[in-house]
Amino acid sequence: MVVSKTTPDSLSDLAQKTQKASQKLAVLSTKQRNEALSAIAAALSTHNEQIVAANQKDCEEAKKEGIPQALQARLKLDQTKLQSAIAGVQDVVKLDDPIGAVQIHRELDTGLILKRLTCPLGVLGVIFEARPDALIQITSLAIKSGNGVILKGGKEALNSCQALIKVIHNALSKTDVPPEAVQLLTTRAEIQELLSLDQYVDLIIPRGSNSFVRYIQENTNIPVLGHADGICHLYVDETADLKQAVTIAVDSKTQYPAACNAVETLLVNRTIAGEFLPLLAPAMAEKGVTLRGDTETRQILPQIEEATETDWSTEYGGLVLAVKVVADLESAIAHIKSYGSKHTEAIVTENNDHAQAFLNQVDAAGVFHNCSTRFSDGFRYGFGAEVGISTQKMPPRGPVGLEGLVTYKYQLTGNGHIAASYSGENPKPFTRKDKIRTQ
Amino acid sequence: MVVSKTTPDSLSDLAQKTQKASQKLAVLSTKQRNEALSAIAAALSTHNEQIVAANQKDCEEAKKEGIPQALQARLKLDQTKLQSAIAGVQDVVKLDDPIGAVQIHRELDTGLILKRLTCPLGVLGVIFEARPDALIQITSLAIKSGNGVILKGGKEALNSCQALIKVIHNALSKTDVPPEAVQLLTTRAEIQELLSLDQYVDLIIPRGSNSFVRYIQENTNIPVLGHADGICHLYVDETADLKQAVTIAVDSKTQYPAACNAVETLLVNRTIAGEFLPLLAPAMAEKGVTLRGDTETRQILPQIEEATETDWSTEYGGLVLAVKVVADLESAIAHIKSYGSKHTEAIVTENNDHAQAFLNQVDAAGVFHNCSTRFSDGFRYGFGAEVGISTQKMPPRGPVGLEGLVTYKYQLTGNGHIAASYSGENPKPFTRKDKIRTQ
Repeated sequence: MVVSKTTPDSLSDLAQKTQKASQKLAVLSTKQRNEALSAIAAALSTHNEQIVAANQKDCEEAKKEGIPQALQARLKLDQTKLQSAIAGVQDVVKLDDPIGAVQIHRELDTGLILKRLTCPLGVLGVIFEARPDALIQITSLAIKSGNGVILKGGKEALNSCQALIKVIHNALSKTDVPPEAVQLLTTRAEIQELLSLDQYVDLIIPRGSNSFVRYIQENTNIPVLGHADGICHLYVDETADLKQAVTIAVDSKTQYPAACNAVETLLVNRTIAGEFLPLLAPAMAEKGVTLRGDTETRQILPQIEEATETDWSTEYGGLVLAVKVVADLESAIAHIKSYGSKHTEAIVTENNDHAQAFLNQVDAAGVFHNCSTRFSDGFRYGFGAEVGISTQKMPPRGPVGLEGLVTYKYQLTGNGHIAASYSGENPKPFTRKDKIRTQ
Repeated sequence: MVVSKTTPDSLSDLAQKTQKASQKLAVLSTKQRNEALSAIAAALSTHNEQIVAANQKDCEEAKKEGIPQALQARLKLDQTKLQSAIAGVQDVVKLDDPIGAVQIHRELDTGLILKRLTCPLGVLGVIFEARPDALIQITSLAIKSGNGVILKGGKEALNSCQALIKVIHNALSKTDVPPEAVQLLTTRAEIQELLSLDQYVDLIIPRGSNSFVRYIQENTNIPVLGHADGICHLYVDETADLKQAVTIAVDSKTQYPAACNAVETLLVNRTIAGEFLPLLAPAMAEKGVTLRGDTETRQILPQIEEATETDWSTEYGGLVLAVKVVADLESAIAHIKSYGSKHTEAIVTENNDHAQAFLNQVDAAGVFHNCSTRFSDGFRYGFGAEVGISTQKMPPRGPVGLEGLVTYKYQLTGNGHIAASYSGENPKPFTRKDKIRTQ
């Protein structure tokens, strides 16, 4: 089942096989899908040594090639991380079934019953970084949601991914989920080919750098779930509790600076800038954050670097924060409109009218009041699992849980009902009684 | 406000103005938006004569140019059609507000409240046929859902559209909705330019021929709401009530043959083909339907035309029906998988297991049992308004009401909450109490 080299033709064949398998998977019961997940968890436990050994091979190679420490850390799949990934699969078993949920249940007329039910998308194409534990998580979310999945992990993790897929295929072969529903691609060249398979692939989920995600979005007709940027702002209003504002700013910047929901630009109301910035500077310095300020900020904090136009549109991904003094709430909102990436935007204020205006007027997946931008996250929102964070405007938007992997269909059941009865002269009326309507 | 000629630059300016106006519109109350709709309805009534006169000019021109009768009929906006369009605007006033709906209301921790609220998309680009009443309907749905709209109607309706926009702009100028939120394009060249304005336009809704919709989908990075084909099937199973099957088949084909939800191919189970087809043929003949059959069908109905491979993938849009005899339910589902357009697929059967298998396994926006495919329609489903029918797999799928014109955002409100409290050693637990969860 492991594909070591594919020609364009065989990748199309493989995608077709995945689609066929996904159609079988789609009609399995919750129990059948959960049993498959439990089988995967058990098999990963049983074969833990060979998985960790395969990963050690990848890690040694990566060390030899001198890839950055941070990437090496992500690549590593030791016993602790593997056990935690296995626990993750067991957690997915416990999640509510995202498919077969009734969103609308409506009697259109006596005996003519409309239902809107959630169902799987079909086949997912997931391109992820060199992180073997991501393969385990993605596979379990795909099976839970009844979708086939074609996986492509970062090349540094090749041995680990192949070892994992072998174990997963063996486990699935003893369950009702066809092993062909989960496939692994192994060469970078296959990504381009995958993007053209809109006949077989229903959603592409790219994970990685902004430029990579944008490249994917611009090179496929398949819908893409992915955020291309995370330039988040925190606006400290004139009526902010200044101590609270410092705490929130420090958390938003430093709790995990590489995350897309970390803050990149701090906007400070002019009225309180003279009081606030001298409180902020030492707190940020203590955490090792470099501040870059506009002219007004540097009049108050002359020791800091100058922020240039580029800074307002930069996702630092590290311990740098741009700071700008603004005249008022409106100027803050205008700055966010120009430079924000529609990810997460926050205000600190004790003025409820200002808070409400900010929450209403700022166009972003997350709009926050008096709390850290770092809460913008599927797990923290309680979605149980996070497929990704989307900064697209159309739903699914923001942190996307399992619901982002399903669609719906309308089922209509009658007993000989025809449209002609409800039109022309003397049309029958529709009764339209709702039993369920949750959309 | 009426733009008679625009250069590429000025179209971008116009879209930017529409976006600015849409941001004002987005934060208006339900009452303010409804008042604007009532003002439009009143103004259309007051200025009915000049609107009808402008339309007469279009109709005379169309007659002179010899455009087809059906198109002339759609172009016509007489007093009756105008009054019905005005009543339509008043109906939109009565619809539930699609924006500000709370989809999730969850306490993450004491004082940390998450809400998911529906909000407008921003600016819609709607390209529609030469039907002036469509302009009235689209404009009212856009305003109701808090969206700006850039309209481009078929060129034959130019005078009518310009007259309508003038009345609508005058009406809006006395309300809180900025008139710039509704814009009219007048040249075909502007469509191409519109498709490139992904900075200002959030959703393109093309209405028209399949090839036109597909052209739009392939030439823009803006999300597109549109169906590209409606090849619907009706499968008559071996246990079908044959009389009911004839009635449903006739309705599905003839109740409005030009509609995308009309049936194009009839699949007949071999076991009952000999009994069913001789019942079907005269019923279809009576309605003027031409049948085209495969070899087995023509053994039973030798008088009918031969169906070729092309027929299975043709949307006739008129009184022609392709007929094929199939071995069983599985063959019927396989045929639909190969040739269906994921619009609406129906089965007639008295066997509930067969019905359930069909509804589960067929991948289409609508899957129907013992009723006509013609029910696949937003008004019939009770959505109050229909923006379009989408055959894309991702939501919104199938008939799309006002909910297709909105997105959502996550609002999080705290009082100094930071992420660090919930991680590291001794992390605080989240409480996650749901007050509302409707997704």
